[in-house]
Amino acid sequence: MSLKLVQQETFMRVALALSRESVRNGGGPFGAVIVKNGEIVAAASNSVTLTNDPTAHAEVNAIRQACHALNTFDLSGCTLFTSCEPCPMCLGAIYWARLDAIYYGNSKRDAARIGFDDAFIYEQLGLQPEDRAIPMISLLPEEAGQAFTDWEQLENKTEY
Amino acid sequence: MSLKLVQQETFMRVALALSRESVRNGGGPFGAVIVKNGEIVAAASNSVTLTNDPTAHAEVNAIRQACHALNTFDLSGCTLFTSCEPCPMCLGAIYWARLDAIYYGNSKRDAARIGFDDAFIYEQLGLQPEDRAIPMISLLPEEAGQAFTDWEQLENKTEY
Repeated sequence: MSLKLVQQETFMRVALALSRESVRNGGGPFGAVIVKNGEIVAAASNSVTLTNDPTAHAEVNAIRQACHALNTFDLSGCTLFTSCEPCPMCLGAIYWARLDAIYYGNSKRDAARIGFDDAFIYEQLGLQPEDRAIPMISLLPEEAGQAFTDWEQLENKTEY
Repeated sequence: MSLKLVQQETFMRVALALSRESVRNGGGPFGAVIVKNGEIVAAASNSVTLTNDPTAHAEVNAIRQACHALNTFDLSGCTLFTSCEPCPMCLGAIYWARLDAIYYGNSKRDAARIGFDDAFIYEQLGLQPEDRAIPMISLLPEEAGQAFTDWEQLENKTEY
């Protein structure tokens, strides 16, 4: 479903209000909402420090909340409104969740200016594993294949 | 702390056992453990379909569990053993969590062969936002800046 500009701005302003409320509550300055069929199905803010969870960005929190509300891991048909351009972790989550579109307020350059800089992660992901800052070492690849063989032999497996 | 090869293999085999157990339990064929000072602080498997959470990859689950156990969002000093090379979402989480090193069993090419293909996400992240498959649209950037201004004016803010 296509949203009109006035609706888009309304939903974005909810995400922006969440980002400001989060600052007042001791969270990070980020908020996000997920919309389906013109209705908000998830509204979340960044809770990395409040919950000691480095994955608890506003977008990831909103995706988890929307999936719980809709009882699915597939958010096709949903649109994300986020107060800031998503980081690579959140973009990965957005692609796995199959969201339709992303509206964002602040850019990643705006975020970098106040100390939230994800440029190094984009750079790292563009490198070969052996060239990355965090060492990546292959170990026991032959033994590791067994789970995949077991998976392939399942008769009823959920593709995702 | 540096781990000897025999220790590395022991921890990897726990991750591999988790990946096989996950297949038997109806989860995805992936397992991961996080180790600090020679001890396992988190052990998890992929629960995307079991919990309807597209972010519930084994690595993300293990990071969240380790942070909860250690009461911190900073996993410096910790090492990840994962049954499969992490996807971009998980790598993003790994960089935010500041893990020291990653040992992996199956490669992403092995995963792609059984239908778990994350190459499109690496490709998408390498594109400019306006060229990505999921549309990314800037909206209300001027209003969005208020939360960042509020954040900068905080006297006691946790950097992360």
